[in-house]
Amino acid sequence: MPGNRAVAYQGPGIVELVDAGYPEFVLQDGPGVPPENAGRPVRHGAIVRPIATNICGSDQHMVRGRTTAPPGLVLGHEITGEVVEVGPDVEVVRIGDLVSVPFNIACGRCRNCKAGDTHICERVNPQQPGGAYGYVDMGGWPGGQAEYVLTPYADWNLLRFPDRERAMEKILDLAMLADIFPTGYHGCVTAGVTTGSTVYIAGAGPVGLAAAVSAQLLGAAVVIVGDLNEQRLAQARGFGCETADVSTGDPADLVEAILGVPEVDCAVDAVGFEAHGHGADAGSERPASVLNALMETTRAGGRLGIPGLYVTGDPGAGEEAARHGSLSIRFGLGWAKAHSFFTGQCPVMRYHRRLMEAILNDRVRIADAVNATVLPLEEARRGYEEFDRGAARKYVLDPHGLIPS
Amino acid sequence: MPGNRAVAYQGPGIVELVDAGYPEFVLQDGPGVPPENAGRPVRHGAIVRPIATNICGSDQHMVRGRTTAPPGLVLGHEITGEVVEVGPDVEVVRIGDLVSVPFNIACGRCRNCKAGDTHICERVNPQQPGGAYGYVDMGGWPGGQAEYVLTPYADWNLLRFPDRERAMEKILDLAMLADIFPTGYHGCVTAGVTTGSTVYIAGAGPVGLAAAVSAQLLGAAVVIVGDLNEQRLAQARGFGCETADVSTGDPADLVEAILGVPEVDCAVDAVGFEAHGHGADAGSERPASVLNALMETTRAGGRLGIPGLYVTGDPGAGEEAARHGSLSIRFGLGWAKAHSFFTGQCPVMRYHRRLMEAILNDRVRIADAVNATVLPLEEARRGYEEFDRGAARKYVLDPHGLIPS
Amino acid sequence: MPGNRAVAYQGPGIVELVDAGYPEFVLQDGPGVPPENAGRPVRHGAIVRPIATNICGSDQHMVRGRTTAPPGLVLGHEITGEVVEVGPDVEVVRIGDLVSVPFNIACGRCRNCKAGDTHICERVNPQQPGGAYGYVDMGGWPGGQAEYVLTPYADWNLLRFPDRERAMEKILDLAMLADIFPTGYHGCVTAGVTTGSTVYIAGAGPVGLAAAVSAQLLGAAVVIVGDLNEQRLAQARGFGCETADVSTGDPADLVEAILGVPEVDCAVDAVGFEAHGHGADAGSERPASVLNALMETTRAGGRLGIPGLYVTGDPGAGEEAARHGSLSIRFGLGWAKAHSFFTGQCPVMRYHRRLMEAILNDRVRIADAVNATVLPLEEARRGYEEFDRGAARKYVLDPHGLIPS
Amino acid sequence: MPGNRAVAYQGPGIVELVDAGYPEFVLQDGPGVPPENAGRPVRHGAIVRPIATNICGSDQHMVRGRTTAPPGLVLGHEITGEVVEVGPDVEVVRIGDLVSVPFNIACGRCRNCKAGDTHICERVNPQQPGGAYGYVDMGGWPGGQAEYVLTPYADWNLLRFPDRERAMEKILDLAMLADIFPTGYHGCVTAGVTTGSTVYIAGAGPVGLAAAVSAQLLGAAVVIVGDLNEQRLAQARGFGCETADVSTGDPADLVEAILGVPEVDCAVDAVGFEAHGHGADAGSERPASVLNALMETTRAGGRLGIPGLYVTGDPGAGEEAARHGSLSIRFGLGWAKAHSFFTGQCPVMRYHRRLMEAILNDRVRIADAVNATVLPLEEARRGYEEFDRGAARKYVLDPHGLIPS
Repeated sequence: MPGNRAVAYQGPGIVELVDAGYPEFVLQDGPGVPPENAGRPVRHGAIVRPIATNICGSDQHMVRGRTTAPPGLVLGHEITGEVVEVGPDVEVVRIGDLVSVPFNIACGRCRNCKAGDTHICERVNPQQPGGAYGYVDMGGWPGGQAEYVLTPYADWNLLRFPDRERAMEKILDLAMLADIFPTGYHGCVTAGVTTGSTVYIAGAGPVGLAAAVSAQLLGAAVVIVGDLNEQRLAQARGFGCETADVSTGDPADLVEAILGVPEVDCAVDAVGFEAHGHGADAGSERPASVLNALMETTRAGGRLGIPGLYVTGDPGAGEEAARHGSLSIRFGLGWAKAHSFFTGQCPVMRYHRRLMEAILNDRVRIADAVNATVLPLEEARRGYEEFDRGAARKYVLDPHGLIPS
Repeated sequence: MPGNRAVAYQGPGIVELVDAGYPEFVLQDGPGVPPENAGRPVRHGAIVRPIATNICGSDQHMVRGRTTAPPGLVLGHEITGEVVEVGPDVEVVRIGDLVSVPFNIACGRCRNCKAGDTHICERVNPQQPGGAYGYVDMGGWPGGQAEYVLTPYADWNLLRFPDRERAMEKILDLAMLADIFPTGYHGCVTAGVTTGSTVYIAGAGPVGLAAAVSAQLLGAAVVIVGDLNEQRLAQARGFGCETADVSTGDPADLVEAILGVPEVDCAVDAVGFEAHGHGADAGSERPASVLNALMETTRAGGRLGIPGLYVTGDPGAGEEAARHGSLSIRFGLGWAKAHSFFTGQCPVMRYHRRLMEAILNDRVRIADAVNATVLPLEEARRGYEEFDRGAARKYVLDPHGLIPS
Repeated sequence: MPGNRAVAYQGPGIVELVDAGYPEFVLQDGPGVPPENAGRPVRHGAIVRPIATNICGSDQHMVRGRTTAPPGLVLGHEITGEVVEVGPDVEVVRIGDLVSVPFNIACGRCRNCKAGDTHICERVNPQQPGGAYGYVDMGGWPGGQAEYVLTPYADWNLLRFPDRERAMEKILDLAMLADIFPTGYHGCVTAGVTTGSTVYIAGAGPVGLAAAVSAQLLGAAVVIVGDLNEQRLAQARGFGCETADVSTGDPADLVEAILGVPEVDCAVDAVGFEAHGHGADAGSERPASVLNALMETTRAGGRLGIPGLYVTGDPGAGEEAARHGSLSIRFGLGWAKAHSFFTGQCPVMRYHRRLMEAILNDRVRIADAVNATVLPLEEARRGYEEFDRGAARKYVLDPHGLIPS
Repeated sequence: MPGNRAVAYQGPGIVELVDAGYPEFVLQDGPGVPPENAGRPVRHGAIVRPIATNICGSDQHMVRGRTTAPPGLVLGHEITGEVVEVGPDVEVVRIGDLVSVPFNIACGRCRNCKAGDTHICERVNPQQPGGAYGYVDMGGWPGGQAEYVLTPYADWNLLRFPDRERAMEKILDLAMLADIFPTGYHGCVTAGVTTGSTVYIAGAGPVGLAAAVSAQLLGAAVVIVGDLNEQRLAQARGFGCETADVSTGDPADLVEAILGVPEVDCAVDAVGFEAHGHGADAGSERPASVLNALMETTRAGGRLGIPGLYVTGDPGAGEEAARHGSLSIRFGLGWAKAHSFFTGQCPVMRYHRRLMEAILNDRVRIADAVNATVLPLEEARRGYEEFDRGAARKYVLDPHGLIPS
């Protein structure tokens, strides 16, 4: 039996390779596993050998020490790979299948799953609705930045690629189906992006760039991406977006300079709670600054898609209220403009098949847009560090050296 | 030419009858009329003789002096009456028609109106999208708590009742179509209320009660109404609702006592920015307390319909931030539960026809539910005062003594 | 081990009690089982002891010999009962649960199921998308007019009643959740029925009556039910519907006599391919007469919900084209009126939970509306015969004598 | 006062230039004007000088003598031009505006218009819901293949281009907003086309090609266009579509050769009632052949968008039933696959703004896709004849020689 080298969080700022042990068809006790979940049989699961397993911006919240993630937690919820074993209750997924694994874990048997709301599955996480791999408070399921990972409810969750060869040719694009591409797309869909829309996307990290690509795919007329990081803005310009350097002023003014009006039809918050201010305030954390700016920058009747993560508590926050999850929001402004607000994790299963088809049929080049950059598992730490410093890259770990260059 | 007795706001706490002058087919200059609107021709208008013209909770914000409404403003945006004159551009509406006048004034010719978003018409109010009768910052259109009122874009805005006699039999029910019935219904529709839903409605004032009736009409399994005012809660129980006296505890606990679980499927905020706290905090204004409680009390994936008014500035607020329209909202809680939030005025035209049919065909008794209480125009002041003291009534002014008793 | 008395189709006009054998967790070969399905393991299944198992109008198509159903086929797809055994892959459903079993069998693992389209599951029936219990060409799954029945993919399909005692009090209402109540409701939802709609429902059999109840629950202003059978029309009048005896004239004329206009907002076809003509043609089969009448009777822009069954071939049809499944449809009339048409089986899982809540919270009395009539299993033949003769009843078989009288 | 040269239908196969008289703000009596409409004041109208006024496939039905269009009818319902006069009730549209005129005429004041259903306006055509320019049975409004045309309810109907100079640069693309681009787009929207869809479009005439462009804009993965006309298929291949020459076989087989499966996700009928058969039947009219083929070629649960025109009577039809508007449709096949069908004219106003934005922001090149070909008004007859012979062109008349070459 093989071992299982895996990337673990070991404390603020520290990620290390550990041997996590080859998975069995059970959720074994370990760091962050709720007692009710420890020992849970996973006969419906598949063991996947990750081919591409990405570092996500939301991992950084843990690695920076902004959460209660326990040391030893194996990271990684963006998994694409090959099925190497299946449990006795699996009927559809086959050994040898190449699959995308949605970052949300869902049971396919609860009220929410039956309604397509796989982001708030009621049965995989005893602490709250919604589970995920390798993430604090998400049920204790080990992450997939590893040589092997156990994926529960495989028939329900996993998306099979129809052709192995075609899939390997586009594996870096397909690797974005596990999280950021659907997440960015969900942000746009909830924001109401459609043919001819003008769109403002706050944040030019990977999710923001994925949202920008999604807006284009949905037919947007103009896509404006705002960020403080010029390197990331350049990345957005590289595939046809307009950009707004919000260190130089307010989004509404920057939007007006581009469109002639200070408002867009649709807005997406791809930043979340670690937001900074704009203009003169760009150096400081201002957790509500993106939300407030989006209300100003979005036309009356508009919708705000908010895939960026907001948390119920943030002990590291600068503002006292934010430590308890409260933000000072100009809600009356939104009300006067009859805005709608859409929050929460993306239900990946709602979108991954259609986005896969768009990739396989050459309708979209998501890997280029986010500047996918392959690293071996051994260099995970470097990936985390460079990403944390604002590299305009999406780091993809390649545990088995299988990604064609 | 007749005069036009009308109810005017004259300063904090003061409403008086004035002679506002019989309307002509022009928006004449007057208190609160933006310069760009003064003198605007209204050839597309109709002059309506109000039969029922209601006092609204949102009028109270002005009368209490919580806004910048100017003295002399004629109040009243809930108008039901008879067409007595039509302008030269009117084709559909006829003299003698009995009509419901949506509180939102809309032009029927701008981008938003064409999309059905009559609550944010771009052309009736030069200050911001959206106009209304007799309301501060809503375009300066005189109110309809009067003997006569000018209704612009009559063919677009007015809903004709199909039969005069049937209409007069149900005139108190039909009087609720101008605002509170569609507004409560919109709250429920945006909250996702459907067959079998469990619903929590914050606020047992007329809009809250209208939302409760709407939830029943939409097929809700259980409707729970929360308020601090026992008299209003008794009104809700009178037509089959469960109630939660939030002076005695938190909504989630009270919901759990009724349903066995602390969460409902759908929630409606029919309170708005003048909210008080719950339990021990019930004596104090807590402008975000309803929003925060609804996030706690609504299940993951749920939607919050927010017809209750939130304002961009509230000089009379107790909290400094609230004076500038900022509220301290537990946004991370909503995010973790993947909530959606729907704000703004109700686009009355989207719903009034269907609700009229429900009334005329005996499917709903909204006047009884909100305890419609008729007063002559002369007693408007008493209506304002009693309503402000929390009477469990919806006051309907009857300027011409036409409502059958 | 117990035996398993069951109602079997034995040839045109003949149903008999047979011993079908106690189920095991496998789909055993038998009448109508496709070779690919024979021997299929059902580790995900539950064995249910039916408490209420209804006779459906669509069973009559088989019993009348209008299909290729093989002798020996155990009938029954409307099953409500108690779980008495669960397979090794079942996690949610427990022995002792009272459950409603959707008539569509679905795997919960294919593309269509993941999209909520359980009526066209791709994996339970090798012949075409969509499976059902006890029905020709639906995968060969034995029916539930029996003492015991195997229900596959139990965690996915079965709806658990939250409280055993409350459930038994309303067991006749809950028995309609397996098929006719969701089917009628689906007809109304697809027809666009909402608050204030006027609705015409063709057919006053159990599905038509269930559609009428559903229209009321959805807030319709006026519900008109048309049929040739006066006894069934009387049943519809008994719960507040208007009725149209289409043996006396065309639906449009009868609608006009009620509404003053010859068109309704929404229409539902609860008749299907064995339709008769109207007025003078009422004595003859006219397979397209309902569709054509609904286009005439529905206003421009309206939608037609078509839960009534149409078949790909009908060897017993009077018209040659109908034998091959072709109907002579006035499609140009529908096009001129911009109609939309919604066909197919109802995806029961989309609706059964909400309808259960409406029943359990006393919002609807479906059993009374359809005149639910309990018979012991031994009298199944009588039920089939009386139903076929047009009795205004919904026959519910009670194999174990458990339904309280 | 100028005259008004215009293209008139003068009998089967004959179109001629006539002087139709310069419009006034009234609907004057003339060929095809219903008595109730003759003399109707049009104070809300604008007089437009067409810059581009296209020949439409639906005009051909009239010119071929397949309708009851009267001689003298001025043709043309695809109008793009400059406003040269406005009536006294017009507030928004200004002289000098460049505008797109939706082919549907709508009043903006009836129940259907208020619901956004401008294709079935109740007040512009006394004969049935829905009006149009220059078309039989559509209210008698003179067509716009002319030097000048009266456009009623100008504020409601007309779409103003935001910038004159940019508009003239793309005038041939913008000319498709009056009908075929929204019509093709509506076909795709109703068919459910979205990111990643596989789509089959029956018909490679201008509407079919516009549907194909729309499918791409909506993110379709694969777009297959079927026709009998190789020149038109070549046009479709020119912008990235797959094609199916249905003279060589059945659509399902041709689809399978391309996709590997015989079914697509979504289907659009851009042919209508003058359909021919497939394969060996390609030489004969088979009015239901497209509908029947689409049911076969569309996967279970799919939707059929049907913008192709079907008529209530077709005296020139080969089949007796078709003469009375009845088609022999395999409805049972659609039912077994749970298909939905969406018919009727496109409500242009629902889509034209967004499509204009897509054009102006270089997201789509519709004029190239349909091979827009400019002719002076004098050569209208040649345009009709070449188009009728199957030229792979969209003919655009240029009455004033204003289109830049």
